[in-house]
Amino acid sequence: MSAAEIVMQRIDALGKISEEPGRLTRTFCSPAMRAANELVAKWMRQAGMITREDAIGNLIGRWPAQHPDAKIFLLGSHLDSVRDAGKFDGPLGVFVAIACVEHLRRKKIQPPFAIDVIGFADEEGVRYQTAYLGSKVLAGVFDEKDLQRRDADGISMADAIRQFGGNPDALKSSRLNLKKTLGYAEVHIEQGPVLEKKNLPIAIVSAIAGQTRAKIIFEGRAAHAGTTPMNLRRDALCAAAQFILAVENFAKTNRGLVATVGQIEASPGASNVIPARTILSLDLRHQSDSERNISSNALKNCAQKIGRSRGVSVKWQIVQETAAVPSSVELSHLLATAARRHQRQVPKLPSGAGHDAAVMASIAPVAMLFVRCKNGISHHPDESVKKEDVQVAINVMNDFLFGLAALHKKSD
Amino acid sequence: MSAAEIVMQRIDALGKISEEPGRLTRTFCSPAMRAANELVAKWMRQAGMITREDAIGNLIGRWPAQHPDAKIFLLGSHLDSVRDAGKFDGPLGVFVAIACVEHLRRKKIQPPFAIDVIGFADEEGVRYQTAYLGSKVLAGVFDEKDLQRRDADGISMADAIRQFGGNPDALKSSRLNLKKTLGYAEVHIEQGPVLEKKNLPIAIVSAIAGQTRAKIIFEGRAAHAGTTPMNLRRDALCAAAQFILAVENFAKTNRGLVATVGQIEASPGASNVIPARTILSLDLRHQSDSERNISSNALKNCAQKIGRSRGVSVKWQIVQETAAVPSSVELSHLLATAARRHQRQVPKLPSGAGHDAAVMASIAPVAMLFVRCKNGISHHPDESVKKEDVQVAINVMNDFLFGLAALHKKSD
Repeated sequence: MSAAEIVMQRIDALGKISEEPGRLTRTFCSPAMRAANELVAKWMRQAGMITREDAIGNLIGRWPAQHPDAKIFLLGSHLDSVRDAGKFDGPLGVFVAIACVEHLRRKKIQPPFAIDVIGFADEEGVRYQTAYLGSKVLAGVFDEKDLQRRDADGISMADAIRQFGGNPDALKSSRLNLKKTLGYAEVHIEQGPVLEKKNLPIAIVSAIAGQTRAKIIFEGRAAHAGTTPMNLRRDALCAAAQFILAVENFAKTNRGLVATVGQIEASPGASNVIPARTILSLDLRHQSDSERNISSNALKNCAQKIGRSRGVSVKWQIVQETAAVPSSVELSHLLATAARRHQRQVPKLPSGAGHDAAVMASIAPVAMLFVRCKNGISHHPDESVKKEDVQVAINVMNDFLFGLAALHKKSD
Repeated sequence: MSAAEIVMQRIDALGKISEEPGRLTRTFCSPAMRAANELVAKWMRQAGMITREDAIGNLIGRWPAQHPDAKIFLLGSHLDSVRDAGKFDGPLGVFVAIACVEHLRRKKIQPPFAIDVIGFADEEGVRYQTAYLGSKVLAGVFDEKDLQRRDADGISMADAIRQFGGNPDALKSSRLNLKKTLGYAEVHIEQGPVLEKKNLPIAIVSAIAGQTRAKIIFEGRAAHAGTTPMNLRRDALCAAAQFILAVENFAKTNRGLVATVGQIEASPGASNVIPARTILSLDLRHQSDSERNISSNALKNCAQKIGRSRGVSVKWQIVQETAAVPSSVELSHLLATAARRHQRQVPKLPSGAGHDAAVMASIAPVAMLFVRCKNGISHHPDESVKKEDVQVAINVMNDFLFGLAALHKKSD
């Protein structure tokens, strides 16, 4: 069986481990995660790794180096999922990493560094509405206050970790040793349609885009839909519609920017009443923080201009801002060199979605490899990746580790 | 005390009769309607009228003619209200009519016809979600099936009418004698801002606008807001926004048309997901049915064109269509002649809202007089009318009845 076939089989098997019947949902510290960690740990051990679980429930398989003081290179992704998820988002990166270790073992290659394959305990953040719990603990940026958060059943995060077998009082002990950490590389599905459009299996991630989330409130005046002439209206929904189109047009003409209005609410919300108030969500992403900030300000001005011209007031509330995380130039260069051996043209794409790599970047150089997924679909049972593309990803990661080993041997 | 002052006092007194503490709500056959009918009947009798209640609870005050076979002219409006209502919508028309009868009595004028002042039992339709119950019974167009409808407490309409003291089995007996009915005239607040904008107290209603209500569904494709480039999106909300602006622009450039999108729903409705589906309501009104139908078709084509250009499918469902009801040319001419004695410029406005007059038009010629209301607000506690404007309405209606009497004396 080819390495890709094994990965596909493991994806299928893990995809059956769910906390909900009939669909895939695997949230932080759930019994499904317990079963997932045990199954994946078994595969890690079969590949020759020594496995452990850290204080928050991250599963870590160690492929040791010859020298006990050797540095460690990290590979991996997350094992949790969203609700009604696809089976590739997360596990693909863990299983490609295990495949790489199996390749090293089969080829009897011993790099001058240890390899830790990490299955992060929580990236999606479904259970406690706070993402990246696993990588935050490893990177030492976990906020202890989050331990008091409660899930929908009222169970605190601390209790959930305890029930899972972790130790919420010793999370700091799981922090990585920065001096020993060489870097982190993650394979992940693209979650977008660009590679499919380009008809290419893989791409290098240039950066994880920064994000601005805003809530925008247009406030006009409710009035009778039958008796209020068009020129005497202050229609909050028309103002919002004009803004939505302006957002779309702005993003289309500003390369690298994506902008989305995903939520809209008009009140009072009766078919015969002119909307007095419309509330929108705006999601802006760009790999350049300055471009994103310039765009956010331009769109804010645009909303206010639309409001002024219509007698509609505009409130602009920033809900969240996340800075972009550039990939390591050195690791990405190595990754691209490896990739070009298997794919003539290797595009560099920003990642519009967040990943564990974004958190890991706070303590180590990171690189990411995107794998084409069908129709760009993710977070949905239709999520699908071709076996052939998985094989390309494995080959590239094998060569990447070979290149990394060569580099470190040279520098030893 | 002036006639207008008396009307304003009565409006205040009736405005306190409510089924809900702290706000005005007076629904069909409620105890509040019982108290309202009794209070208004007392005022009718004080004005010299003989009062009765018909089988559905309409309150009718008769100012008899000398000849027992004389025909009857109808005046009035409704005594029920919406929830959390203003106090003018409905009662103003009833009290101006009573003031007209008081004027005839004081001036000892005896027209060659009887006058029935009607306080309709249900126009707003709050309790049984079906409007115009009172006028439908008088016009003989009441649908007996409606008697089985149940209110929020499970009380059938038939039982509600019985509890009120009406007779659901004898509704047909309350049908007006068409041969004896000369016509119907109604005074009502404008419920719109046009008179205030024109700085005029009153207007003649040219027609009650017809209405098209449609539900429009835009169906695109959900995708990740961060990873889907702008040019690969099929965003159902952007398509809807483009349509909303097209609707607004179309109505602005088509005189007499009002068009409103009052409801919007985008799903899945997450800030980080491109909307796959957006559902809109569209409310179109025009006093010309052909203009309204042409507009509806033009907007349907427009929606489909927008959909095609975006890879978004469009479903167009007609929810309801109501034909326009033109006012009687003869009665409106008489009304306008009377009005011009009190106001130099008398605009003719279509009524964008429905009224009892629309139902009465099925059996008799109708005319309506609009009275300016503050900020065009109705169906809200802030509803407000000036005493001076009420006096103009009373004067115009007095002169209208005088003109009508002269006409009928001549033709006798």
